[in-house]
Amino acid sequence: MTARPRRLLILGEGFSHDAHYGKTMRGIIRYGPDPVVAILDSARVGETHDGIPVVGAVEDALQFGPTVAVVGVATQGGRFPPAWRQLLKSSIASGLDVESGLHEFISEDPELVALARAHRVALLDLRRPPEGLSVPTGANLDVDARIVLTVGSDCAIGKKTVAVELDLEARRRGLESVFVPTGQTGIAIAGWGIAVDAVVADFLAGAAEQLVVEGAERGGELLFVEGQGSLVHPLYSGVTLGLMHGAAPHAFVLCHRAGSTEIEGCPGHPIPPLGELIELHERIALPRRRAKVVCLALNTADLSDNEEARAAIEATAAEAGLPADDPVRFGAGHLLDAIVARLYAPTAAGRGEPAEN
Amino acid sequence: MTARPRRLLILGEGFSHDAHYGKTMRGIIRYGPDPVVAILDSARVGETHDGIPVVGAVEDALQFGPTVAVVGVATQGGRFPPAWRQLLKSSIASGLDVESGLHEFISEDPELVALARAHRVALLDLRRPPEGLSVPTGANLDVDARIVLTVGSDCAIGKKTVAVELDLEARRRGLESVFVPTGQTGIAIAGWGIAVDAVVADFLAGAAEQLVVEGAERGGELLFVEGQGSLVHPLYSGVTLGLMHGAAPHAFVLCHRAGSTEIEGCPGHPIPPLGELIELHERIALPRRRAKVVCLALNTADLSDNEEARAAIEATAAEAGLPADDPVRFGAGHLLDAIVARLYAPTAAGRGEPAEN
Repeated sequence: MTARPRRLLILGEGFSHDAHYGKTMRGIIRYGPDPVVAILDSARVGETHDGIPVVGAVEDALQFGPTVAVVGVATQGGRFPPAWRQLLKSSIASGLDVESGLHEFISEDPELVALARAHRVALLDLRRPPEGLSVPTGANLDVDARIVLTVGSDCAIGKKTVAVELDLEARRRGLESVFVPTGQTGIAIAGWGIAVDAVVADFLAGAAEQLVVEGAERGGELLFVEGQGSLVHPLYSGVTLGLMHGAAPHAFVLCHRAGSTEIEGCPGHPIPPLGELIELHERIALPRRRAKVVCLALNTADLSDNEEARAAIEATAAEAGLPADDPVRFGAGHLLDAIVARLYAPTAAGRGEPAEN
Repeated sequence: MTARPRRLLILGEGFSHDAHYGKTMRGIIRYGPDPVVAILDSARVGETHDGIPVVGAVEDALQFGPTVAVVGVATQGGRFPPAWRQLLKSSIASGLDVESGLHEFISEDPELVALARAHRVALLDLRRPPEGLSVPTGANLDVDARIVLTVGSDCAIGKKTVAVELDLEARRRGLESVFVPTGQTGIAIAGWGIAVDAVVADFLAGAAEQLVVEGAERGGELLFVEGQGSLVHPLYSGVTLGLMHGAAPHAFVLCHRAGSTEIEGCPGHPIPPLGELIELHERIALPRRRAKVVCLALNTADLSDNEEARAAIEATAAEAGLPADDPVRFGAGHLLDAIVARLYAPTAAGRGEPAEN
């Protein structure tokens, strides 16, 4: 069954319209290596999404020849909404392999496992940590590559997308660049990685270290590490800091959504001003490798007009005193220029001391 | 077998002399509710430790009538040194229940489980997280108690001990105080708690929230939460920040070892000056509850002389501009005064805005 070509049905029930909780779906459609032949979301039957047909039931998707059903949502806390059990069972009963990135592991669910065995399909949990993780050894500081980590003012604002776009642009320019996935969608896109938010908390930095070591082993001289959460997010900040210290980056790219002043879903939890946020990241970076924020990636998806987006980017650049751009809307070239100037010619950098160790 | 009185044999093989890795043993001897009848460490046979006989083999401890063998060490990465397997097997074969706080779970080891079944003894993993953890709900900010979290410049410098001493002193004064355990030794001492470093990283803050909610349910109007790691520790900082945000403290007590300038076991990773460390904690505290560092607990165990210790405390207080003391050496009264003055009469506080939400 593993020799079948991978043709994806994305399960997006109830979330496929949602930029936050449907981010896994969007990431896979945009950057994944496998064709997405249908999306399941019963609230949008008959629509298309990026040209892909939306269906209301697994059975209705079979005409498009899927071989793998991918859970395309990211729920808070990573649990399956109760209605999803039937979707998963229908997918298995229809002969589809199932891949999930939630914290609740389908491969440990006795009912689903029995059903999958009966239908000879595979269940894969993208967030299941590998065996043998531990604390960092110091190998992160010995990796022979320049390491860039995306960080952000909130969750679900594009840290993964910015890392992917920067990596694509770097490779277009002939740099030996590798995207380093640290979450379920990144793993689905790149085919390797560890979901660092799913490991035992004590081994978070160790998992991040292992990922940058592997990124270099995969030929990366320049690593773009997918960031997680935010230092100022009341739910996920621990993951953010463990990743920051374990990945030992030389530089940060700070991601922010234009106009956001509060953590999404957490009323009363403000996002500090950008200047403060930049300083916070630089202060808490490993003293052994004092990484700086090199540029800002501004998510302008909420601004319909390009002029407006450009104005927001200019205002952000002025506020932060750093290069800024929206790499999804206007390409990653401008931000990559700033990163390359900083990491490869530190004496030419205009701000602070060089980011190198 | 659970009805037997608890009489502890502490397994400290190779570590019982070590203030860092033997900290579990020391915590249990000092603050635990059950008598410790013997310590096992083959390098110290015939010695006594706090009046407790040290033996070289499990069999030699049986004359003292132990009923439970407790793993009294905290190894880096939480794995058992290979030689330990024989110790655990001897304990089980001698009819002792075994309790461990390492990340490697004895209750999941097939060989040990089979042996325990044959000898009708129990295996307990203090660090095993409870079922059903998730992300914080916001209940941490609604807890009807004053919450104090111990934080520190490094691991193994006394964050748990300081929280325990403050709680004991507060109860002596008639305050409704509760010690909130967040690690294996704290759990062994208090008989409840969650080892937050052993939960799935995404649920770290959620576990911390659950602990302060339970602390208030246990009658605490004043909660002393055991801190973990350090914001500036390259291995464990993620755990520290997740706990800081999830426990939502009103005040921090900063723990520091007199004279330390580098993270123990991490050459080249400096401890920043105290003023910087204080500012870092206050800057990264939840904006919804801007906790301040209220006082400093200085570990002066390395200074043999009381005069010297007092001088170090005075120098630290002057450097930080905050009350300081060594609560183990000189009692927790002075620090508790500072905390009570701050949390119960915020208008009288001399420094910054009140720590209340």
